[in-house]
Amino acid sequence: MALGGGHGLHSSLSALRRVTTDVTAVVTVADDGGSSGRLRRELGVLPPGDLRMALAALCGDDEWGHTWSEVIQHRFRSEGELHGHAVGNLLIVALWELLGDSVAGLDWVGQLLGAHGRVLPMSSVPLDLVAEVEGADPVHPYEISTVRGQVACASTRGRVRSISLVPEAPPASQQAVKAVREADWVVFGPGSWFTSVLPHLLVPELAEALVDTSARRMVALNLSPQKGETDGFRPETYLEVLAAHAPRLGIDAVLADSGVVGDTTRVGEVAKQMGGTLVVRDVAAGDGSPRHDPDLLAAAYDEVLSQPR
Amino acid sequence: MALGGGHGLHSSLSALRRVTTDVTAVVTVADDGGSSGRLRRELGVLPPGDLRMALAALCGDDEWGHTWSEVIQHRFRSEGELHGHAVGNLLIVALWELLGDSVAGLDWVGQLLGAHGRVLPMSSVPLDLVAEVEGADPVHPYEISTVRGQVACASTRGRVRSISLVPEAPPASQQAVKAVREADWVVFGPGSWFTSVLPHLLVPELAEALVDTSARRMVALNLSPQKGETDGFRPETYLEVLAAHAPRLGIDAVLADSGVVGDTTRVGEVAKQMGGTLVVRDVAAGDGSPRHDPDLLAAAYDEVLSQPR
Repeated sequence: MALGGGHGLHSSLSALRRVTTDVTAVVTVADDGGSSGRLRRELGVLPPGDLRMALAALCGDDEWGHTWSEVIQHRFRSEGELHGHAVGNLLIVALWELLGDSVAGLDWVGQLLGAHGRVLPMSSVPLDLVAEVEGADPVHPYEISTVRGQVACASTRGRVRSISLVPEAPPASQQAVKAVREADWVVFGPGSWFTSVLPHLLVPELAEALVDTSARRMVALNLSPQKGETDGFRPETYLEVLAAHAPRLGIDAVLADSGVVGDTTRVGEVAKQMGGTLVVRDVAAGDGSPRHDPDLLAAAYDEVLSQPR
Repeated sequence: MALGGGHGLHSSLSALRRVTTDVTAVVTVADDGGSSGRLRRELGVLPPGDLRMALAALCGDDEWGHTWSEVIQHRFRSEGELHGHAVGNLLIVALWELLGDSVAGLDWVGQLLGAHGRVLPMSSVPLDLVAEVEGADPVHPYEISTVRGQVACASTRGRVRSISLVPEAPPASQQAVKAVREADWVVFGPGSWFTSVLPHLLVPELAEALVDTSARRMVALNLSPQKGETDGFRPETYLEVLAAHAPRLGIDAVLADSGVVGDTTRVGEVAKQMGGTLVVRDVAAGDGSPRHDPDLLAAAYDEVLSQPR
């Protein structure tokens, strides 16, 4: 199973679907930007965008699956009220309104796509992120301030030190907790570290399951720091931040791109302290963009997932 | 096959699906109101609403078909920009944008629903209705004025005398023309007479096919006049208006509700002049609403459709 949100989770799922037939994605529900943010404010629903992207990544292999995946990813472009809305967001919200059950609604879209697995929200209520940020005001570079909302956290001019959720200690999706407990492997990342990967560890029941599960845990590091959110991150910083938000969380493997990890000493040490081994492979797209190559990432996942215990 | 639009066509298809496995609906594309009107203005597409309703009426019999039918019929309710939009309208428009082909897009939705047949637009371009109206201004009750737009035509305070299309002589959907030529029966109505039933006769190639086809033709009369559009209509007026808009059109059967047709003499005569026989049956819903009962309408259709030539 894979935890995350946004484009990082989409990459991870696009790779995982090639190496396993049974993927469960547990997705953050704190987005407040774009089409999702508008739907959340207008209709009081969970932000559907990251859930939609995860479903699209798991679509069936045939023309049917690919076509409906393109349909749900399609965005209206206009000078009017629909501009920017992704069709799948509207479809998911309609199913939620009709069925009154966020998991059932997502399962219907999964069935429509012939999806290779399941997509679950991490919580049944919409959440807000709050970040502690250092140096948001350039005049006072060491001052800590708080920033609220996923968009604001991801685009802050300061450095994010930690995040929390509002409401604090939200209810976990029971299906997500069950899926974590029954998984063989849990994959953290890649993705926006504070706004997509860490929030799962702030949902108490989900965090507990992630710590207690008999599943092994892999951390897939990002290819490049994100402006604002993870500016200046070294490879080991991702792990340190993860440990700071979930001190009891052990890990089994850390996957990093060879172009990102030059000197492996420090990140290897931190991985070891958390119980895991560092695996360095070429997983970046060849075009120089900070994107994973799905085939290379799938090969690396396959190698890690098939390691003996 | 059935020609029409809106709720009348929905009723007709809900009945036809019970008596035949192969229904084609040819639907007007002149709507400019509600969700359809907004989509048409914002995105420059065909108005999808009547097409969506026809597809919903033909949905598969199982849970899958019924659920997706409910999804496409679902309307957002809010105080924001999505209020009033039907989900199926957005889905159809997305498929049109993605595939660039209005018929292919509708066929995909039909496949999604497991539809008992096919839904086609009468023309590939959005149309406007123009009505010649008598007495729109109560001060000059015999003055003829013109009214433009389906909503304006349907809600005029005067009496509609005739309608025309803008652009004049629009291109017919080739699939619709083919379907008319290959049909066993063509059913006109029930439905808003000027705004849903007659427009098909103003698309030259479609009108020609409707006159020339070897299919038999049935006219299903409305249960009550509609305020504005068909105020004061007697049963035979529907036929007279049809003949006025398509003088060469022969008909084989006229189906009327027994509660509507008291004295059958005059309507029977007009039917006969047009080549058809009058069939009077109980087809109205028992609740006094001006709606057809789907079972009764299906039984009456079955009787007419199985008449020997």
